[in-house]
Amino acid sequence: MQLGIIGLGRMGGNIAKRLMDGGHTTVVYDRSTDAVKASVSAGATGASSLEDLVAKLAKPCAIWVMLPAGAPTEDTITALAAMLAPGDTLIDGGNSFYKDDIRRAKALAEKGLNYIDVGTSGGVWGLERGYCMMIGGDAAEVMRLDPIFATLAPGLGTIERTAGRTKTDDRAEHGYIHAGPAGAGHFVKMVHNGIEYGMMQAYAEGFDVLKMKNSNNLPPEERYDLDMTDIAEVWRRGSVISSWLLDLTALALASDAELAKYSGSVADSGEGRWTVEAAIEEAVPIPVLATALFARFRSREEHTYADRLLSAMRFGFGGHVEIPQ
Amino acid sequence: MQLGIIGLGRMGGNIAKRLMDGGHTTVVYDRSTDAVKASVSAGATGASSLEDLVAKLAKPCAIWVMLPAGAPTEDTITALAAMLAPGDTLIDGGNSFYKDDIRRAKALAEKGLNYIDVGTSGGVWGLERGYCMMIGGDAAEVMRLDPIFATLAPGLGTIERTAGRTKTDDRAEHGYIHAGPAGAGHFVKMVHNGIEYGMMQAYAEGFDVLKMKNSNNLPPEERYDLDMTDIAEVWRRGSVISSWLLDLTALALASDAELAKYSGSVADSGEGRWTVEAAIEEAVPIPVLATALFARFRSREEHTYADRLLSAMRFGFGGHVEIPQ
Amino acid sequence: MQLGIIGLGRMGGNIAKRLMDGGHTTVVYDRSTDAVKASVSAGATGASSLEDLVAKLAKPCAIWVMLPAGAPTEDTITALAAMLAPGDTLIDGGNSFYKDDIRRAKALAEKGLNYIDVGTSGGVWGLERGYCMMIGGDAAEVMRLDPIFATLAPGLGTIERTAGRTKTDDRAEHGYIHAGPAGAGHFVKMVHNGIEYGMMQAYAEGFDVLKMKNSNNLPPEERYDLDMTDIAEVWRRGSVISSWLLDLTALALASDAELAKYSGSVADSGEGRWTVEAAIEEAVPIPVLATALFARFRSREEHTYADRLLSAMRFGFGGHVEIPQ
Amino acid sequence: MQLGIIGLGRMGGNIAKRLMDGGHTTVVYDRSTDAVKASVSAGATGASSLEDLVAKLAKPCAIWVMLPAGAPTEDTITALAAMLAPGDTLIDGGNSFYKDDIRRAKALAEKGLNYIDVGTSGGVWGLERGYCMMIGGDAAEVMRLDPIFATLAPGLGTIERTAGRTKTDDRAEHGYIHAGPAGAGHFVKMVHNGIEYGMMQAYAEGFDVLKMKNSNNLPPEERYDLDMTDIAEVWRRGSVISSWLLDLTALALASDAELAKYSGSVADSGEGRWTVEAAIEEAVPIPVLATALFARFRSREEHTYADRLLSAMRFGFGGHVEIPQ
Repeated sequence: MQLGIIGLGRMGGNIAKRLMDGGHTTVVYDRSTDAVKASVSAGATGASSLEDLVAKLAKPCAIWVMLPAGAPTEDTITALAAMLAPGDTLIDGGNSFYKDDIRRAKALAEKGLNYIDVGTSGGVWGLERGYCMMIGGDAAEVMRLDPIFATLAPGLGTIERTAGRTKTDDRAEHGYIHAGPAGAGHFVKMVHNGIEYGMMQAYAEGFDVLKMKNSNNLPPEERYDLDMTDIAEVWRRGSVISSWLLDLTALALASDAELAKYSGSVADSGEGRWTVEAAIEEAVPIPVLATALFARFRSREEHTYADRLLSAMRFGFGGHVEIPQ
Repeated sequence: MQLGIIGLGRMGGNIAKRLMDGGHTTVVYDRSTDAVKASVSAGATGASSLEDLVAKLAKPCAIWVMLPAGAPTEDTITALAAMLAPGDTLIDGGNSFYKDDIRRAKALAEKGLNYIDVGTSGGVWGLERGYCMMIGGDAAEVMRLDPIFATLAPGLGTIERTAGRTKTDDRAEHGYIHAGPAGAGHFVKMVHNGIEYGMMQAYAEGFDVLKMKNSNNLPPEERYDLDMTDIAEVWRRGSVISSWLLDLTALALASDAELAKYSGSVADSGEGRWTVEAAIEEAVPIPVLATALFARFRSREEHTYADRLLSAMRFGFGGHVEIPQ
Repeated sequence: MQLGIIGLGRMGGNIAKRLMDGGHTTVVYDRSTDAVKASVSAGATGASSLEDLVAKLAKPCAIWVMLPAGAPTEDTITALAAMLAPGDTLIDGGNSFYKDDIRRAKALAEKGLNYIDVGTSGGVWGLERGYCMMIGGDAAEVMRLDPIFATLAPGLGTIERTAGRTKTDDRAEHGYIHAGPAGAGHFVKMVHNGIEYGMMQAYAEGFDVLKMKNSNNLPPEERYDLDMTDIAEVWRRGSVISSWLLDLTALALASDAELAKYSGSVADSGEGRWTVEAAIEEAVPIPVLATALFARFRSREEHTYADRLLSAMRFGFGGHVEIPQ
Repeated sequence: MQLGIIGLGRMGGNIAKRLMDGGHTTVVYDRSTDAVKASVSAGATGASSLEDLVAKLAKPCAIWVMLPAGAPTEDTITALAAMLAPGDTLIDGGNSFYKDDIRRAKALAEKGLNYIDVGTSGGVWGLERGYCMMIGGDAAEVMRLDPIFATLAPGLGTIERTAGRTKTDDRAEHGYIHAGPAGAGHFVKMVHNGIEYGMMQAYAEGFDVLKMKNSNNLPPEERYDLDMTDIAEVWRRGSVISSWLLDLTALALASDAELAKYSGSVADSGEGRWTVEAAIEEAVPIPVLATALFARFRSREEHTYADRLLSAMRFGFGGHVEIPQ
C-alpha cells in the first residue's frame, strides 16, 4: 500500500527503503533535499513540502512521521492535521511521550483523523533485521495498516518459536503488536528502553569488575589480566546472559578492547526518564532502572557538587585524619 | 578421552551424558545409587565410592567434581587429593568462590596435582545447547583437557560470528575460554552471574511497570491493560533487548501471564554476593548489580525491621497527620 | 498583625495557636466546626465560611491556607481569589508542588493579588519548637509579613551559632528564609523532604543490620544480641550521626524495641516523588534519594510481579537445581 | 586510674588529654617523638618504646591502642601480647574489623589477657564534645574500666533526655554502651559509619538538586538561584532533618558556598565496605548504604570502563542517531 513518510534520518530512510523493498509505494519528505533525493533514487516519490506530500497521497492517506520527539514531531503533526481530511491517518513512529499521544489522539479524533503511535525498536540494524513495533491506537485502523507493519517487522525468521503459545493473534511472533489504545505503543516502547538502560548498566558494571581485577590495589596473587574480548564472545554461546546487546558488546570489544575512542560521557533520552516517572505514578519500585539512569547522569560530570559536599563534611568531622571519625 | 565425574545432579548427569554422546568414556559416582544407575544405563562406568572411582580411572586421571559449592565440594576435593598421584587432575565444575580455587590450586600443586576451575553456564538446557565454560588453571593442562571442553561446549552453532575478531585462539567462539590462572574461571563465571542478577531485575522491574499500568490508582484515561505474553514475545524479535533470558520469560508468560505459581520469594546463590564483595575490593561502583541482589533479599521478607522503623519515625514527627511534616 | 487561617488540622491549628501566643490576631476557618470552636476558645475569631473569613479581615488582608496539597488547596485558592481585592495576599503553607506555585502566582498577579508559598517543617512538634520555614514569593511582600514568620519560627534558641557566617540577613539563623521567587519555598521544602527520606532509610537499614546480627543464619560465634534502644540512645551523644530523627528513633525504641505496633507499610507523600522528578529534569544523579522512595513503595507490597518474574526466569534456566545455572 | 595509650594522632592525643583533664594518669607512646613530647607537656608520662610503656604501667595494666586498622593495630597488639602478663588488658580503640576482634580476643584469652574493642566516634571534636563509645568484650572488665569510659564520654550534657526510658543501665545516656562480647563494639561502630555514609549522601544529593536548580538546561521560569548557606542554616532550626552533620555542612558552606577547595574525590574507609558485607551475610537489603559507598568509588574516577562500554553499546545499536533506537 501507499505510505507518506516524513523524516528521512537513519530510521526514516531505512523504513522507506524496507517498505519499498517489500512492494509498497512511498511519498517522502525531509527538510534535507539530499535525503529526499536519496529516497527518490531508491524508488520513492519525493515531495518538496508537507503540502506537496499530502497532495501526492491518495485518499484516505496514511503518513508516518519519523522525527525527534518534542517540538519537531509536535509541530509537524499540528501542521499536517490542518491539511488532512476525515479518515486520514497520522502515524508517529518516533519516541513521543505516551501522554502526548493520548492528548493528540483525542484532538485529532475531533477532526475525524486517526492517530497511531508506533514504538519502533531496531536502530540502524532495522533495515536488515526488521523493526520490532509496539503499536497504539484504534484496533480497526491498526488492522487496516497491517500490510505496512507486516513488511517492516522482522517476521518469524529463524528465531525459535516459544512453546506453549495459545494466542490466535500471531503478530507478536512476527515482531509487532497492537498494545492497546492511543499511547499504549509508545508506553510499551518506553518501558522497553527503560529495561535497556538497566541491562546495559548490568553489563557495563560487570565488565568493569572484570577489567579492574588487574588493579594494583589488589594483592598480586588475586589479580587477573582478563581478556574482555574473549569473555564477551564466550558468553554469547550457551550462557544465561547471551543477548543482542552482548553481541554488540562483543563486536565493539573485538575492534578495541580498551574502548579508547569513547569518552565515557553517556547521553540519555526521554524514555529512561519517563520510565522512572511512570513507575513513580504507579508506586512501582524500580531501583535498578532508576540507578541505571543516574549512572548516565553521573557519567557526564567530572565532579558533582554532591561529591564536594561529602568531602566538606568529612573534613568537618575528621580534619584530615584517616583514623576513627 | 576418559573422565571421572562426581555428582550426578541435573548438571553433572547431563555433563556425563553429553560427553558420552560425544564419544568420551566416563566413570561416575554419586551418593545416590539411583543417579549412578541412570548414568550407567546411558553408558557410564559406575563407581561405588570415591576410592572405587579413582581405582577405575587410567593414570594420569582427571576427575570433574560437580557438587554444590562449600562443604560438599571442599570435602570431596580434600578426600580425593589423598587418593591421587602426581600428574592427576581435579576439576571443580561447580560454583566455588575463586579465592578457594587459588588456595586449593596452591595446596594441590605441592602434591604434584593439577587443579582446574570451570565456571559452567547453561543450566538444565546445557545438555542440548552445550555449556558455556570459563576455565582457570595451568594453560598446558587446560589444553590437555581440550577434548572434554570442546565436546561440552556449544560450538560455533548457528550463532552469527562476530565481525572483526582477530584472535587466533578460537575457543571463545566455540563457547569456552581459558580465562587465566587458578580461580580465573570461577571469577569470570561469578561476574557472569552478577550480571545475570542485574539483567533479570531490569526485566522484572520493566514488566512490573507494564503490569501495574492498569492500577486503579491511575487516572482511567491513562490506564492500559497490557498483554505481558505478547510483549515478551514481540521483544524477542528485532528489539534491542532480545536475549535468552527474554526467551525464557516469554516461555513462562506463555503458560501463565499471571505467574501465579511463583510465590515471589527469590533465592540467591553465592555468586551475586561475591560479585559485590569483589567490586568493593576493587572500589568499582556496581549500584545496579548490588541493588538487584538486595531486591532478592527483600523479596524474602514480608516486612523488615527497617520498614517498621520508618513508620515509627514518621509517627514520631508527624503524628498521624498526612499534611506537612 | 492579623492573619486569616484556613485549615485547622494539627499543623494549621498549632500555627494559629503559636501566632496568638505571640501576640497576633487570627481569623480562622475549617469545614469542621469543632476545629473552629477549639481555635476560638484559644482566642481566634471564628468564621463560618470562606466569605465570612474574608469579610472579617482588615484590608489588605493575608490568608494562610494550610490544607492537603492538590485539590483541597487548589480549590480553596481559586475560590478565595475571586473574593479578594488587589493588594491582598494568599499564603500556601502546605506541601504544594512548586510548579503549581509558579502558575498560581502568575495568575493571581494578573488580579493584583500576592501569592506566597511557605514550605513548613516541624510536624506536630512545631507548636513547641517553632516551625522551620522556606518562603517563596515577592521579597517586599515576604518582608511585610515578617512579623508572622518571625513568630512562627524557632528563633535563635539554644542552638549553637554557626561560626563564620557573614550574612547580614539573619532570618536563616532564626529558622526561616526567603528562598526566592514564587515556588522557591516549596522547592526547598520538597528537597528537604527528599533528604529526609534518604536519612530515614539510612537509619532504617543500619538498625536492620544491627537487629539481624542475631540471625540463625549466622555462625553462632558471630551473632550478637544487640540492644536497639541503647544503641539509638548512645548515638545521640557525641556521635557523627546524631540528629533529630535519631532522637525520635530513640524515643520510639524506648517504648518498644521491637516496634511491634507498626505494620511496616510505609506511606509516601508527594515531595519524595517530586524530588526524583526534579533531579531528573536537572540530570542530577540521586540514587540514594530515589532508592529510599522505592523502598517505601516496596514496603507496601507483599510480593511484586517483578519478584514472581525473577522466580519464573530462575525456574526457566535452572529447573529446581541449585547448583550451576 | 592509669591508662597506657599507644598512638597519639588527633584521636589518640586528644583522648590522652581528655583523660588527664579528667584526673586520670597516662603513659603514652608514639613512634613520633614530637607527639610524645606534646602529650608529656600536657601531663603524660612518656615512653620510648612499647617495652618502656609496659614497664612504666602498674599491674594489672590497661593499654589503649589507637592506631589505623589493619597492620599497624594488628602488629602492635601482637607485640604487646608478648610483653603482658595474665590479667592485663588491651583495648583497641581504632576501627578494626569486628571479626578480627573475635579472633584476637580468643587468642589473647588463652594467655589470660583481656581484650576490649571500643568503637569511638567523635572525630576531632571529641576532645571538647566527648567521645561516643561502643564497647565490646567481657562485661566485668568493661565495668572495671568504667572510670576511663565515663571520663571520655560526653555525659548527660544539655541534650534532652529521651522520655520513657526504663533501662537501669544509664551508660547509654552518658554516651557509651557495653554492646556485647568481643567485636560487638566495633560492629556497632561499623554500622554507625555505614549509616553515616547514607546520611551524608542524602544531604549531598539534596544540595546538588538545589544547586543545579539554576542550570541552563531548565526553562528560565523554573530556575532558582538558591542560597546554599542559608538553606543549610535554616534547616538546623526546627526542621525534621537537623543533625550534627547538617551543622558541619552549614559551617562548611558559611566559609565557601561553592566548596571550591574540595576536589570531589571522596575517600572511604573500611567500615562502609564492611557494613555492606555484613548485610550480605545477614541477607538484609541495604540499597541506600551500598549506593552511598558506590557514589564514593565513582567520585574517584573521571570516567569508568563501564561508562565507555555504555557508549560503545549505544554506538552499536544506534550509530550516532539520536532518534529511535
